[in-house]
Amino acid sequence: MKHSSPRVAILAEGLFAPETAKTAIGALRYAPYPIVAVIDSTRAPSDAAAHVGAGAGAPVVGTLGESLALGADVLLIGTASAGGRIPDAYRPVLAQALAQGVDVWSGLHERVLADPELASAAARGGGRVRELREPPPDLPVGGNRRRREAAKVVLTVGTDAAVGKMTVALEIVAALKRAGQRVAFVATGQTGIAIAGSGIAVDAVVADFIAGAAERMVCEAAERADWLIVEGQGSLMHPGFSGVTLGLLHGSAPDAMVLCHDMRRQQVKGNVFGLPIRRLSECVRIYEDAASWRNPPGSPRARVVAVAINTSSSTNGDLVRATLDGARVETGLPVFDPVRQGESGADGIADAVRGALLG
Amino acid sequence: MKHSSPRVAILAEGLFAPETAKTAIGALRYAPYPIVAVIDSTRAPSDAAAHVGAGAGAPVVGTLGESLALGADVLLIGTASAGGRIPDAYRPVLAQALAQGVDVWSGLHERVLADPELASAAARGGGRVRELREPPPDLPVGGNRRRREAAKVVLTVGTDAAVGKMTVALEIVAALKRAGQRVAFVATGQTGIAIAGSGIAVDAVVADFIAGAAERMVCEAAERADWLIVEGQGSLMHPGFSGVTLGLLHGSAPDAMVLCHDMRRQQVKGNVFGLPIRRLSECVRIYEDAASWRNPPGSPRARVVAVAINTSSSTNGDLVRATLDGARVETGLPVFDPVRQGESGADGIADAVRGALLG
Repeated sequence: MKHSSPRVAILAEGLFAPETAKTAIGALRYAPYPIVAVIDSTRAPSDAAAHVGAGAGAPVVGTLGESLALGADVLLIGTASAGGRIPDAYRPVLAQALAQGVDVWSGLHERVLADPELASAAARGGGRVRELREPPPDLPVGGNRRRREAAKVVLTVGTDAAVGKMTVALEIVAALKRAGQRVAFVATGQTGIAIAGSGIAVDAVVADFIAGAAERMVCEAAERADWLIVEGQGSLMHPGFSGVTLGLLHGSAPDAMVLCHDMRRQQVKGNVFGLPIRRLSECVRIYEDAASWRNPPGSPRARVVAVAINTSSSTNGDLVRATLDGARVETGLPVFDPVRQGESGADGIADAVRGALLG
Repeated sequence: MKHSSPRVAILAEGLFAPETAKTAIGALRYAPYPIVAVIDSTRAPSDAAAHVGAGAGAPVVGTLGESLALGADVLLIGTASAGGRIPDAYRPVLAQALAQGVDVWSGLHERVLADPELASAAARGGGRVRELREPPPDLPVGGNRRRREAAKVVLTVGTDAAVGKMTVALEIVAALKRAGQRVAFVATGQTGIAIAGSGIAVDAVVADFIAGAAERMVCEAAERADWLIVEGQGSLMHPGFSGVTLGLLHGSAPDAMVLCHDMRRQQVKGNVFGLPIRRLSECVRIYEDAASWRNPPGSPRARVVAVAINTSSSTNGDLVRATLDGARVETGLPVFDPVRQGESGADGIADAVRGALLG
């Protein structure tokens, strides 16, 4: 690195919008390093917050060159597709960056240096590639290791994929820090890893080792923190991703779960058959049942102790209040939107977690 | 190949026993090609059936040379470990085989040619390596494809890992063939692939694509058969492998399931904490619940329609009868051991499947 902390430009060409730029938004909201620009020529010049409601002050620019002029020394790919391929439109910009010695961080399944032209650009210019989803070697099979018992594990789970599980986890981390707790964020996906600087993308490991990867992260984090907030992945009801979700659930073996939902989501994300999202109360039952399978029969059950609802799609305060109230009545649980409600919302979830596990 | 059909020697050095040589036993019982020898110097000379109850007539020999003298032109690694590493004791034999132009078939996670000495032996002698667990490129995310509707899918599921799900699937295939049906075996693990000659090891794909791999296999097989019998993997109650199991369940989207159990198994295989196996009736409920999550609420539920119990560990006929009867009473389902009971047992399971799906 040229700077002690990276100075990051986010590549989101043509896709810098709430539905398509999940990694960009996560980094803009939570990264501990400066984001000097977002690259999307179709939205430049403008301010990041105008498009995604996060990153006020970060300029949207049209070219890599403009971001370099602002001091960028890392280019983070800020969008993701379900298949994990590098968009063809990104390849020239990535080549340009690597050829100029700019590092590239990628969370896609496809490896940047597997493209011969990008590998050649990197060799020429000295730009390095950090593959956020590259799993460590020698992962274990899960189920054979116990963490330090005093450490409590909280997993965010979802009514669907991409409903805000990482955001909720990071907000709980912040709330517990405000309360003076020793807390660790356990990153399990590419955006979380880009923010935290470490972690394992459990959707990218060889399938036999999903739980083992989660278990290793949790056991290691338990040595340095009393609260481990694990970023959830996918959904048990998502026909494409449910295996990753259950492996993570059984590998992290949470003491409590927080159910995350997006009030706008009516159908399972990315599913061509329009599969409907299940009711919150049904999701609570499903996650609690599934969590119990990996324990001896009769063990205390890990509970869903709070619900976090992403209400960002609505500007109608009455509708938002009614949504949160309805969820409270339906589930009998505390319900918050930790982004819309700010610290009080996140504190509410953190209090529910502490009350359930310490009370 | 030197012969129109491979002539296979199975490497099981020091491990040719029921608990450790699952791949060897599967191939000895079901492979459509000749097994000319099993290599295990600690058990040679003897007959395979004396050790594993299968493969009568196949000699156990002490060296690779003896198996070559019997005409072997393929060396199949016949054992597996949970971590999937090549045992160090196997490396000299594998090197010797590859250096003499003998092909090696491996179902381990570790790739044979990743060992420089084995790669060098292969380059020198012309022996080729077939990695049974190597996934195809460009797998899709699951959930977005429907199979030909008239084709019925049956998935074998288990009370634990390694209880006989592949065996039961192959016995159902044979029974439906006897009944004149157009049936396909869908191999999802290394032994099944070694037997069938095709398939995808769903535990070896990148985790995001477990369901997509299963779905692709099922959709393709549905074009050439009316009954698709899918080899199950792991168990929803196994803390290490449950993610693979759920991904396969949601990707294959069975119309019916057959629950497999080993009467001797008291604790989850390979788990150091002695996690107990759950009751059959509880497993039935768990699999039926989990199968339903990937469908719209209110859809018809895929049912467990029969139970297959591996009773090979007992020579006590009364105990075996009591075990099968007890399972019938507990679950209210037809219960058979398709190996001990031979064709009548397998026919009983096949009849239960046909009755449930056509009746």
